[in-house]
Amino acid sequence: MLLRTYDDQVCSIARALEVVGERWSLLIVRDALLGLSRFEQFQDSLGIARNVLANRLAQLVRAGVFERVRYQQHPERFDYRLTPVGHRLFVPVLALMQWGDEHLAGPLGPPRVARHTVCGGELRAGLTCQQCQLPVPAHQVKVV
Amino acid sequence: MLLRTYDDQVCSIARALEVVGERWSLLIVRDALLGLSRFEQFQDSLGIARNVLANRLAQLVRAGVFERVRYQQHPERFDYRLTPVGHRLFVPVLALMQWGDEHLAGPLGPPRVARHTVCGGELRAGLTCQQCQLPVPAHQVKVV
Repeated sequence: MLLRTYDDQVCSIARALEVVGERWSLLIVRDALLGLSRFEQFQDSLGIARNVLANRLAQLVRAGVFERVRYQQHPERFDYRLTPVGHRLFVPVLALMQWGDEHLAGPLGPPRVARHTVCGGELRAGLTCQQCQLPVPAHQVKVV
Repeated sequence: MLLRTYDDQVCSIARALEVVGERWSLLIVRDALLGLSRFEQFQDSLGIARNVLANRLAQLVRAGVFERVRYQQHPERFDYRLTPVGHRLFVPVLALMQWGDEHLAGPLGPPRVARHTVCGGELRAGLTCQQCQLPVPAHQVKVV
């Protein structure tokens, strides 16, 4: 997916970027999280070349983010469904969306909001401490 | 930064990807979050070509993610410090790191852990409902 591999980088961010660190890949995942599943839907939404889209989808299937499921037999047609692993990209994708909302939003304001299906409340991506259970602001983070 | 712009995509994820959606950009931000600030440090850490790194840093400065601060006068030398906006990328970067840890980690396990500077507890990136205050799993998310 990337032109260069990060063999010398043990970092999980580098590994994650190998799978989804290409601009189209994260936008495909975003569309899937919004409910799209068919090749034509992704193409309409993103307006990218069919061969590029086919490539990215195949790579995301190989990486275990999507599975390809046949929904029609004559002629054979498949759709692309997020696996549980792919579904868990909701956290980084929403975190990125909210960072964009806060710092890059256009004059129309945030176009999309994530809601809790149980109570309808608005969701925020954030960091929580597993020990004191408090939400943690970025300046209280240390990576070790 | 990207070869293609997303003029027709109002989405904040697309906007965010315009700024940090290039594999090196997020790795530069990761390094800065880990404490690096000088051109040579980024270059040593990432092993990328100097012109590519200079380019990416200039773009991140223009986007308001880094500021370029002079730390020496003769000869003039600058370092690159995350702005408050850049610092807030901790949430998406850690979310991506933890997704990588869980689904792509190598045999050595997660190489880095994020801790709360106040109590030393381990941090998790996640989604919290602003109404019921509960942590929300990915399958209870709806984007509207």
